[in-house]
Amino acid sequence: MNIQQFEDFESKIGYTFSNKNTLLLAFTHSSYANEQKKSNHENNERLEFLGDAVLDMVVSEYMYRLFPEMPEGELTKLRASVVCEGSLAKLARQLNFGEYLFLGRGEETTGGRNRDSILADTFEAVIGAICIDGGIENVTKYILSFMKQEIQNAKNSLKIVDFKTHLQEVIQRTSKYPVQYIIVGETGPDHNKQFMAEVHHINKILGKGTGKSKKEAEQAAAQYALEKMEE
Amino acid sequence: MNIQQFEDFESKIGYTFSNKNTLLLAFTHSSYANEQKKSNHENNERLEFLGDAVLDMVVSEYMYRLFPEMPEGELTKLRASVVCEGSLAKLARQLNFGEYLFLGRGEETTGGRNRDSILADTFEAVIGAICIDGGIENVTKYILSFMKQEIQNAKNSLKIVDFKTHLQEVIQRTSKYPVQYIIVGETGPDHNKQFMAEVHHINKILGKGTGKSKKEAEQAAAQYALEKMEE
Repeated sequence: MNIQQFEDFESKIGYTFSNKNTLLLAFTHSSYANEQKKSNHENNERLEFLGDAVLDMVVSEYMYRLFPEMPEGELTKLRASVVCEGSLAKLARQLNFGEYLFLGRGEETTGGRNRDSILADTFEAVIGAICIDGGIENVTKYILSFMKQEIQNAKNSLKIVDFKTHLQEVIQRTSKYPVQYIIVGETGPDHNKQFMAEVHHINKILGKGTGKSKKEAEQAAAQYALEKMEE
Repeated sequence: MNIQQFEDFESKIGYTFSNKNTLLLAFTHSSYANEQKKSNHENNERLEFLGDAVLDMVVSEYMYRLFPEMPEGELTKLRASVVCEGSLAKLARQLNFGEYLFLGRGEETTGGRNRDSILADTFEAVIGAICIDGGIENVTKYILSFMKQEIQNAKNSLKIVDFKTHLQEVIQRTSKYPVQYIIVGETGPDHNKQFMAEVHHINKILGKGTGKSKKEAEQAAAQYALEKMEE
């Protein structure tokens, strides 16, 4: 990592390190440290340990305040969907974390620079590094700069899951029979499929829906059924 | 919880709440909220969700700074041994958390007021409450007021595990061959066994030790070997 790369990275994340070594450590994968015969505390695993806890805390507090009526179970589900390997690796890719990594030769030749697990761990290590270098206030600012949007997106997409549950709850008030979902068709090529679903209740079709997955189609059918029932 | 109990509790934890309702919520178990037909966000589970994350973060950062050479694996082990149900329930008992709890009748009659899981959850909920009411600085002060000692105690008792690792590190400096542990005997009845272990290195016996488990015996042998090498 040369000085230009350093400054580019700092301007991207909106934080300037007092001790540049802390950021270098965050980008030092264990495979590189091992190759250089460094001690086992001279790689980014300790910072990752810290960053993981910091990220969880900042996201938890933000969600607690933003959603004052959300039960604990949903808070946990929502947090798990934003603080997960896939979502952290995606954020790391957006900031080109891969190009700054110090990797061992083995990891390099097997595509480690673009591996989800390595990118997500490094993302957490950088969070740990900002916390150690700049304190909780700076790291909170950094985390919320991207997590606010992630949390909103996750909340919107988790909402989909609720139509089926909601419909089931409505039906249970008046009937002991559950609803049934049936996939009645699919169209399009593999990379762009569309599914069609129907939701049935005691031989009656309550709603129909389409979606890019079977689940999405079922959700759409449940949503449609709920809307019809409200009329 | 009457005003006297409130003030007693606040003076015990060294923090005075601006919004007393937040502390009341921390002591409201779901069984009580259900009985009173409150909504599912009017019990202490949301605060527990938050407190759990805050506790993990504060302990992680403290340990990170206190033990600059401790590898990630040991940090994780150490944190798990202080942030666990048993240890949190013990701390809750020391502060008589049980007597402040709002419990449902079912939990009350089955001993909920003294159950580890309920006490540990409430302990986390109080941490969440201080965080929401007083911010990260106040809750950090509160957590470290008891966790510093807990961490020191846990580190001392985990130390046993380190002799084998330490011996391996010492040997690696001068030799590429690992040490080997051999269980050479066991005595006593099943409930009170004693094991004997030897640690070998290239056909030489470095040390012998006994213990109540194979692991303990190996650790004792490693400790003995280290002491002999230091002489």
